[in-house]
Amino acid sequence: MSLKSNLINIVIVDTIHPGNIGSVARAMKTMGLSKLSLVNPRVFPSDDAIALAGNATDVLDNAKIFDSIDEAIKDSTFVYATSSRNRSIQWPTINASEAAKEICNQAENDKEVSIIFGKEDRGLTNDELELANMLIEIPANPEYPVLNLAMSAQIIAYEILKASHGEEIKEWRDYPEVNSKQLQMLIDHFIETAVEIDVIDPDNPKKIISRIKRMFTRLQPDEMEASFLRGFLSVINKKLK
Amino acid sequence: MSLKSNLINIVIVDTIHPGNIGSVARAMKTMGLSKLSLVNPRVFPSDDAIALAGNATDVLDNAKIFDSIDEAIKDSTFVYATSSRNRSIQWPTINASEAAKEICNQAENDKEVSIIFGKEDRGLTNDELELANMLIEIPANPEYPVLNLAMSAQIIAYEILKASHGEEIKEWRDYPEVNSKQLQMLIDHFIETAVEIDVIDPDNPKKIISRIKRMFTRLQPDEMEASFLRGFLSVINKKLK
Repeated sequence: MSLKSNLINIVIVDTIHPGNIGSVARAMKTMGLSKLSLVNPRVFPSDDAIALAGNATDVLDNAKIFDSIDEAIKDSTFVYATSSRNRSIQWPTINASEAAKEICNQAENDKEVSIIFGKEDRGLTNDELELANMLIEIPANPEYPVLNLAMSAQIIAYEILKASHGEEIKEWRDYPEVNSKQLQMLIDHFIETAVEIDVIDPDNPKKIISRIKRMFTRLQPDEMEASFLRGFLSVINKKLK
Repeated sequence: MSLKSNLINIVIVDTIHPGNIGSVARAMKTMGLSKLSLVNPRVFPSDDAIALAGNATDVLDNAKIFDSIDEAIKDSTFVYATSSRNRSIQWPTINASEAAKEICNQAENDKEVSIIFGKEDRGLTNDELELANMLIEIPANPEYPVLNLAMSAQIIAYEILKASHGEEIKEWRDYPEVNSKQLQMLIDHFIETAVEIDVIDPDNPKKIISRIKRMFTRLQPDEMEASFLRGFLSVINKKLK
């Protein structure tokens, strides 16, 4: 399997210290990755970023800046979030080496993958996490699992490079997976319909909505499935008018 | 296999920037390592080291200082050197994940192991390398394999932690998956509803029904999700009566 680095999008969110952007760029390049998306970096471009990038200033030069995660991931079929901490919300979770195999395989099948890294001091919020199909957990010391941003990026990138030398898994789908935006539209449509027919408790909607999002992102529908489900919901909407 | 961290000795040589000593300490602690040996650090102790160690100042406090590598490794049965660059000298070489398995195995058998990391700007000299039984190579981009000191330590420590566990797979579900019978009932309920509202073409139902089955089996719903979906369908059935 080759490393299709143009289809592996590293997304770092709300980065406080520009030096960390440089360190992430270097970590990426040492492992053959090149596509960096910055969501609301506090300072960029930056001399600190250049200083820490070493010989990876080309990664910085080609980095794209976005003002929302949604924009940064909109062309991606699969979205992974990263965390080394325990979270209150449970989300489909995979370890770094298994994730890397999936990521390489998806890129090999010409699907863009995004991997989201949260802000230095707090990681990803639950809302940010819910944009992801899967959470990547980096195995770590349970008493101090606090890797810094560039270290996390280094380990994920390293596992991707290792996996890119590995074996391919055969593609079984006959339609492509929906992209992130289409998936969000399907989820919104389903939730609106569920609210309309009163299956979501309006006094305590939060937990069930989060479960619904988790269910659909885990399903990762293809275009045919999504189109069928949208049709199913539209007919219900019409009949209930 | 447990992680006998008192028998895994991380040796960093001629370190120029004390901040790097702190970053190595943090990288070690995030992966459960604790034994740090400093050979001729240019500045130590140091506020920069403490600043970058995060919550791993205990690793710094317990670090030992030596004026030669020989002294630092004298109790070790096995000695590994690290490099991510091509070297002019050929030395028995092993990749990071294989090395980590050996290291954990040796520590498990009560043998101390040392892992030597060279100076930031040049790595290990050939004389230093020759103190090692084996060279650990971190797989990297051949065009830019230049990991910094703390990144190299992070990857080796991560591989050691993984090797000490075997890899665990994390359970993320808070409800058990439905059994096969419950799944069939959910699928039947969905299909009946879809037929009722005419989203399945009665002239050619076969293909879409097969797709629906595949979609739900792939989803592998848990009991909470299945119960929610059944409730959703029941409300629709009732409203359409």
